[in-house]
Amino acid sequence: MVIKKESKKENVEIDVKGSKGISVNKEENLSDWYTNVVQKAELADYAPIKGFMVIRPNAYSIWQSIQDYFNVVLKKHKVSNAYFPLLIPDSFFKREAKHAEGFAPELAYVKNTEEGELLAIRPTSETIMYDSYSKWIRSWRDLPLKINQWCNVIRWEVKQTKPFLRTREFLWQEGHCVFEDKKSAEGNMNEMISEYKKMVEDLLAIPTFVGKKSMAEKFPGADTTMTIEALMPDGKCLQCGTSHNLGQNFAKTFNVSFKGKDAKDNYAWQTSWGFSTRLIGAITMVHGDNKGLVIPPRVAEKKAVIVPILFDDSREKVLKKCSEIKKSLEKFGVILDDRDGYSPGYKFNEWEMKGIPIRIEVGPKDVENRKVVVVRRDNGKKEFISEKDIAKKVEETLEDIQKSLFDKAKEFLDSRFDEAKTMNELKKKIDERKIVKVFMIDDPSVEAEIKSASGGASSRIVEESKKEGKCIFSGKKTNTIAYFAKSY
Amino acid sequence: MVIKKESKKENVEIDVKGSKGISVNKEENLSDWYTNVVQKAELADYAPIKGFMVIRPNAYSIWQSIQDYFNVVLKKHKVSNAYFPLLIPDSFFKREAKHAEGFAPELAYVKNTEEGELLAIRPTSETIMYDSYSKWIRSWRDLPLKINQWCNVIRWEVKQTKPFLRTREFLWQEGHCVFEDKKSAEGNMNEMISEYKKMVEDLLAIPTFVGKKSMAEKFPGADTTMTIEALMPDGKCLQCGTSHNLGQNFAKTFNVSFKGKDAKDNYAWQTSWGFSTRLIGAITMVHGDNKGLVIPPRVAEKKAVIVPILFDDSREKVLKKCSEIKKSLEKFGVILDDRDGYSPGYKFNEWEMKGIPIRIEVGPKDVENRKVVVVRRDNGKKEFISEKDIAKKVEETLEDIQKSLFDKAKEFLDSRFDEAKTMNELKKKIDERKIVKVFMIDDPSVEAEIKSASGGASSRIVEESKKEGKCIFSGKKTNTIAYFAKSY
Repeated sequence: MVIKKESKKENVEIDVKGSKGISVNKEENLSDWYTNVVQKAELADYAPIKGFMVIRPNAYSIWQSIQDYFNVVLKKHKVSNAYFPLLIPDSFFKREAKHAEGFAPELAYVKNTEEGELLAIRPTSETIMYDSYSKWIRSWRDLPLKINQWCNVIRWEVKQTKPFLRTREFLWQEGHCVFEDKKSAEGNMNEMISEYKKMVEDLLAIPTFVGKKSMAEKFPGADTTMTIEALMPDGKCLQCGTSHNLGQNFAKTFNVSFKGKDAKDNYAWQTSWGFSTRLIGAITMVHGDNKGLVIPPRVAEKKAVIVPILFDDSREKVLKKCSEIKKSLEKFGVILDDRDGYSPGYKFNEWEMKGIPIRIEVGPKDVENRKVVVVRRDNGKKEFISEKDIAKKVEETLEDIQKSLFDKAKEFLDSRFDEAKTMNELKKKIDERKIVKVFMIDDPSVEAEIKSASGGASSRIVEESKKEGKCIFSGKKTNTIAYFAKSY
Repeated sequence: MVIKKESKKENVEIDVKGSKGISVNKEENLSDWYTNVVQKAELADYAPIKGFMVIRPNAYSIWQSIQDYFNVVLKKHKVSNAYFPLLIPDSFFKREAKHAEGFAPELAYVKNTEEGELLAIRPTSETIMYDSYSKWIRSWRDLPLKINQWCNVIRWEVKQTKPFLRTREFLWQEGHCVFEDKKSAEGNMNEMISEYKKMVEDLLAIPTFVGKKSMAEKFPGADTTMTIEALMPDGKCLQCGTSHNLGQNFAKTFNVSFKGKDAKDNYAWQTSWGFSTRLIGAITMVHGDNKGLVIPPRVAEKKAVIVPILFDDSREKVLKKCSEIKKSLEKFGVILDDRDGYSPGYKFNEWEMKGIPIRIEVGPKDVENRKVVVVRRDNGKKEFISEKDIAKKVEETLEDIQKSLFDKAKEFLDSRFDEAKTMNELKKKIDERKIVKVFMIDDPSVEAEIKSASGGASSRIVEESKKEGKCIFSGKKTNTIAYFAKSY
C-alpha cells in the first residue's frame, strides 16, 4: 500500500497562486522572505539533521559557475587543485594555540578511533595540509607551493543556522600557499583578496568593501586577515571571502621549512584564503525580490526561458518557431518550457521564482509579425523584438541586467556609510542599520566593549587613518578607524 | 631554531638515480611497484590517519579531466548536480534491511549528537537522498528526477588499504534517478553502465568487460547491479563502476511515491550508479611501467613537455625557440621545463616518472636544422620532426599513444579468459591468474563455497547461457555462467 503524502496535490494550478508564491514581503521581514525564497526557488531544503541543508540543483549550478570562473583564476596564479583527508587528528589543532582556541568549540569528532586518537572532521585544513607540506618542501626550489582544494567542511555551529549563510556543513575552496619570504606571502594575500572582490563584483554583481580584519576578528592563527564585505538589505554585513597572511606561525608548529638559496634552513611564509557556498545566500539576499530569486546573468547556467503561448489552432506553428529560437540561443543555455497542462501564467511565475534573467514569450500573433516579447527578470520591463534581432538583444539585455543589478546594490552600499564620535551616536546609527566608521584602539578587549554597547555590532574592517583621532571607547589617541556594523 | 628534516638534501642531482627512481620491477612485485609509483609520481601521499590518503595535484588533475568528461555526459542525460549532507541519521540505514546489513560494518559515526540520534558519515547516499526525494516528488509530472553528486565518502575498511584502490575515504560521483516505471529504471541502469564503459575505454584507455553482478556480489538493496570490470597486470580484476536497478525497494522504505497519470498513488522505480577515484589506481596499474606513470593522453592535463638542451653559447637561441614551440602547442597544455640547476637527464626522468605522454627535446643543433626530437612516453620511440610539423605531429602522436595503450591492454585482457568444468580445474586456473568461466547456481551460499575452494576468487559477472550446464559446485543444472577471478 502506498502511504499518502499529506500535501500531495492533484491540481497543479492550485499551487500557483497559493503555496508556490512568496508569502512574505522582502521589505517587511527579510529573514522570513529569505527562507521562503530559498525553499520555493528550490535552492536548498532542510536536511533531517539540525543545521544541515541539501543544496538543490538550482543552487548547485550557481556554485558550478563560480567554480568554473575561479578555476581559471587559480590556473592564472599557478595554483593546483588537490584533496586532503576529511579527518584530522585532534592533536594537530592543539599545536597552534590561537587556531586551537578559535576552532575548538566548533569541532565535530568521529567515534571509530582504533588508532587511539580523537579524529576531528575538518572545519578548515591548515593543520593537515601543512603536515604534508612539511614532508614535501625541502628546498627553495620547491617554492612557491600553491595548492587549493574544493571540499565540504563542518563547523558545529551553536548559533541559529540559516541555509547558505550559516550551516553546520558547507562547501568551499581553501587555497594554501607557501613562500620563501614575507613579502611574497603578503603579496599573495592581497592578490587573492583582489581576485575575490573582482569575482564577487563582476560575476555575482555584488559590490563589496575590502579591508583588514581587526585583532578581534582576524582568523585564528593568522598575522593578518583581509576580507571582502557585502551589505545585505537589512543593513547587516556579510563576509564574502577572506585571505590570510599566516606569517610563520604554522610553519613553526608544523615545521614547514626549507633550505634557502643561502644554504641555510628557514621557516616558510604562508597564506590561506577561502570563500564558500555562503555566496549563494548573498546573491539571494541582495538581488531577490517579492517574485523570488534573481540570478545575475553571468552566474546563471540558464540565462533565458522561452514560454510559448499555445492555442489549439496555432500550436504547431508556435512550437516550431520556439524550437528555432531555442536553437539560435543555445549558447545562453536557454530553456524551452513546452510542458503541457501548465498555463503561461503558471510558467511565468515559476521562472520568475527561479530567477531566470530573461523570459521570451512567443504567441501566434508574434509568429505572424515575426516578433517576440522579451521580459527582463530584474525590472519586469517588456519589449517587442524583431525575430532576427533576438540573439543580439538577449546578449545586450543580459549585460544590462548584470550592470543594473550591480549599480543598484552599489548605490545602496554607498549610501549606508556613516561615522560616529560617541558611543551613543554609534548605537543610534547601528540601530539605523548603518556601517559606522569610528576611531578605535585595535584591541580585542576594547572591541568587545564596543560590541556589547552597540547591541552586537562588530568591526567589519579596520584601516589606518593619516589623521589621529580619539578611540570612541577609551578616548585614547589612535590612527585606527574601524567600520562597525551588524553582521551575519 | 629550524628543526632539520632527516632526508633534506642539498644536491638535487643525487636524488635522480637514487630515491627518485622506481626501486621495484612491475613484473616482479606489482604491489610494491604500485605504491612506489603512486608516491614518486606524486599522485598520492599517506595521511596521518590510517587508511586515508592525500590526493596530490598530479592525480587530482586526472580526476578533474574525468569530471569534465562526465559532466558533459550528465548534461546529455539531463542529470543535474546537487549536494546532500555528509551526515546521515543511523536510523535511515536500518530502514532497508539489505542495505543496512551491507554497510553496517563500514560506518563511521560522529560524536556530537545533541539530537540524541547516532549520525553516520555517508558511505553512499541512497538513504538521505531518497528522504528528500520523498518530499519533492508528488506527481508523474515531477518524473523522471535525475540527480548526481560529486563528493567524498567514508567506508571504514578493515581490509588492507592501498591508495586509490581501497581507502577509507575516497571521492566519487553517485547518480540517483527516479522513474515512473520499471522499464525506464532498467533502461537508465543499462544506459549509464554503457556510458561508464565508454568513458573508461575511450578516455582512460582501459578495456573492460561488462555484465551483471551475482546475487552474492550485487549492491545491498538493489534488484540488479551492472558492473564494468578491468583486468590488472597481476590477473586480478578491478571493479571500475557499477549501476544499480534498485527496483522499488528504497521507494517503499522511504515512501518515494507519486500520483500517476491514472490518478493513483504509485511507488517509484529507482536507479543509482557511481565510479570513484579508484579509476586513478586503475590507470596507474594498467599503463605504468618501470619508469613510472603513463597517463593516457586524453585524460592528461599536460600532454607534452619541452626540455631545452642548454649550453652557455646557445642558451638564448634555444630558449627562444622553445618559447615559440610552447606557444604553438598551447592547446595541449604543454610545459616548458626551463628550470636552472637540473640536467636534461634529470628532467627526462622526472617527466617520465610523472607520465607526461610526449617529450620534446630542443638543442642548439635542432634549432639550426629547424627540427626537434619528439619522444613517446609509452614506448620510448624517438623521432626527428621538422619544426613546422610539430603541432600536427603532436596531435597524431597523442592519438596513437591513446590507441596503443588501449590495444595493448585489450590484447592482455582478451588473452586471460578461460573456462573450467571442475573445482580443481578452476582452482588451477585461478592460480594462473585467469578469468575463469564456470556454470554456477546463482546463490550466495554456493558462491561462498566456490570462493573458499578457489582461494578467494569471486564472480565478477554472471550471464545467462542458452545452453544448460552443470553447476561446478553442486552439479545441479543451470543456465548461469559466472566469471571467476581474484579481485581488488
